[in-house]
This record gives sequence, C-alpha cells and structure tokens, in this order.
Amino acid sequence: MKILKERIMKDGRVFPGNVLKVDSFINHQIDTGLMAEIGEEFKRRYDNCGITKVLTIEASGIAIASFVAYKMGVPLVFAKKTQTKNIASDVYTAKVTSYTHGRVYDVIVSKEFITSADKVLIIDDFLANGQALLGLIEIVRSAGAEVAGAGIVIEKSFQDGGKLIRNSGIRVESLAMVSSLENGTVTFED
Amino acid sequence: MKILKERIMKDGRVFPGNVLKVDSFINHQIDTGLMAEIGEEFKRRYDNCGITKVLTIEASGIAIASFVAYKMGVPLVFAKKTQTKNIASDVYTAKVTSYTHGRVYDVIVSKEFITSADKVLIIDDFLANGQALLGLIEIVRSAGAEVAGAGIVIEKSFQDGGKLIRNSGIRVESLAMVSSLENGTVTFED
Repeated sequence: MKILKERIMKDGRVFPGNVLKVDSFINHQIDTGLMAEIGEEFKRRYDNCGITKVLTIEASGIAIASFVAYKMGVPLVFAKKTQTKNIASDVYTAKVTSYTHGRVYDVIVSKEFITSADKVLIIDDFLANGQALLGLIEIVRSAGAEVAGAGIVIEKSFQDGGKLIRNSGIRVESLAMVSSLENGTVTFED
Repeated sequence: MKILKERIMKDGRVFPGNVLKVDSFINHQIDTGLMAEIGEEFKRRYDNCGITKVLTIEASGIAIASFVAYKMGVPLVFAKKTQTKNIASDVYTAKVTSYTHGRVYDVIVSKEFITSADKVLIIDDFLANGQALLGLIEIVRSAGAEVAGAGIVIEKSFQDGGKLIRNSGIRVESLAMVSSLENGTVTFED
C-alpha cells in the first residue's frame, strides 16, 4: 500500500533490536484518516469472503480494526489481555508470549461474541513472530468459527511469523512488508 | 442521544453493584456504525471550538475516539496504562485509581504528542467517579495544553465524577446520563 509505505519512510523510526516505531501515526498518536484508508484497503482485499466479524487485540489494533469493521459493515470484537489467574468459564482463552514485554499473558474473548456461525477476519498492527496472531487464531477455532484470513498493517518479513502462519494454510494480507531494518534503514520487499 | 439510549435499554445489562454492562456494542464487541454516529454527535457539539487533538485512554475509549477524531479531522492520541515502576522522562504521567479493578495504575502520554499549542477534547466511554478523566485532564495540563472539554458516552450521574469535573469549570458532554440502576433497571435523566 503505497501511501502507508511512504508514511513509514517519512515518520517511522528505527531503533536498535529491529524495533520500528510508528507511534506518531499508528500506535500512540493515530492518523485516523490513514486508518480509514487502511480499512478501505482491507475491505477491498477481503470483499466477497463472507466475513461476519472482525477480531483484533487491545490496544493498538483497535483503531485500525474499527475502520475495517465499519467499512465492511460487520461487528468488531477486541480480545482482552489479562494476567488474572482465574479465567472465567464464559470466555475463550489463549496464552501469548510477548517478546517485546518479556512476559506471557492470557488473551480472552467472551463466548457470546464469536460463534460457530462466524467467519472471522483478524486484524493487527504488526506481525513479527506471530504469537499474538496465533493466539487469536486459537480463540476463533475454539469457538468453532472459521478464520477467513488476517490483515496486518506492517509485517516484519525477516521474522518467521508470517511464513509460519501462511504455511498453516491461513491467508495473510500485509499492507507493508518490511524485509530489513538493518543500519537504521527501512527496506520493503520488492 | 436517542439511538444510544434506545440501544442501552435494548442491549445494556445491569448487574449488582451498579454495574451497567454494554459489552455487546461498546466495550468488547463494538457496533462501529453506532460509534460513527457518536463521532458525528461529538463533532456537532464541539464544532468551532478549535479542537486540535482528541485524547482517550486504552482500551475501550479507542474505538469511540477514533471516529470522533476522524469526523473532526484531527489526530487521536491514546493514553497508555502501565504498572511499570520506572516512568520515562519523555512522558507525561498521572496516577489513576480504578475502583472496578481495585488498583492504582499510571497513565502515560508521550510528550511529543501533546504540546502547549493543543486544544484537547477528551473522550471516554464511561464517567462514574471521574478518576480516569481527572488523570487525562492532569496530563493535558502538564503539557501546558488547554482542555476544550470532555465527551462521554455514558455518564452515571448518580456518582459524583461529573459534578466534580463540571464544578472545576470543565465542559462535559455526556450522550446518555444514567440517573439510576436500581432494581436492575436503567433510568435516564429527564
């Protein structure tokens, strides 16, 4: 997606450890005009797939997924992160390891909001090692629902999450594929 | 706001302890069509106020505030909740007591994203005792920016947050004012 890649080149900042910060327009401060265009782009890519629900994970997926769900005319559900020891029986749950924050947390979705009748599009801002996305896929499958695919804003294609998930047969659409952050420079695929 | 009140009557659920659950359309599953209408309503109420930025707090404020910011054509910033002991020097911070979760957390916003040139509209889903809103007001003022007002989806007017904040001279616009949840029934003001 051209305007997204241009914006990453302009406002993204690379930090040691392959960190790409986009907190001036995606992650902390948000350019909602760009999010609306991203929503339109995912709608275009997943049109006629029979999507009944958009699923994301708090917090930075919510703004993006809001516009995707709005453009597609389906409800949005966001999975919640929790470190509560006692998980209630009325939720689907998956364990996710966060390498960024160095901890394991539970991701939960109320059983009311995903059912076996659903065809779910999963949306997230980043795909790197794929842990969060795998957790969301596990939740959708626990509900007996179908994963129609995933829509990712920025994929770090030099990490193995994207390959892992595509190899498992799930469609993954990423709007910007970053192949390298070496020497503080963002390089895109193609 | 009529359609919001009707929706609360239809899909809101009252639980012991004055808990109003709206997690089927605002808090966990989200009706983004309704959020877009809420965005339009806040734009109408705060039009011509010179708003330069919308501020909310993760996670349940983000979807609402995304549409407010989009309709107003200004950036959205969401404050992050953290329990990290070491707060960096490049953020504004405020302590917020959550009665719901029975703990105190820090709310942070990067200094880059609110400046003394900003006139800020604060958006949140609920206003009850006002602790989160007071934290966000403190952050805006720490930046030397102006609070143009607050936009709340559901105010529990039988708790004292709204009165407290209005008495301090801040404009608060709430789209649904709930005066009572007694006997499991939602009663609105007027």
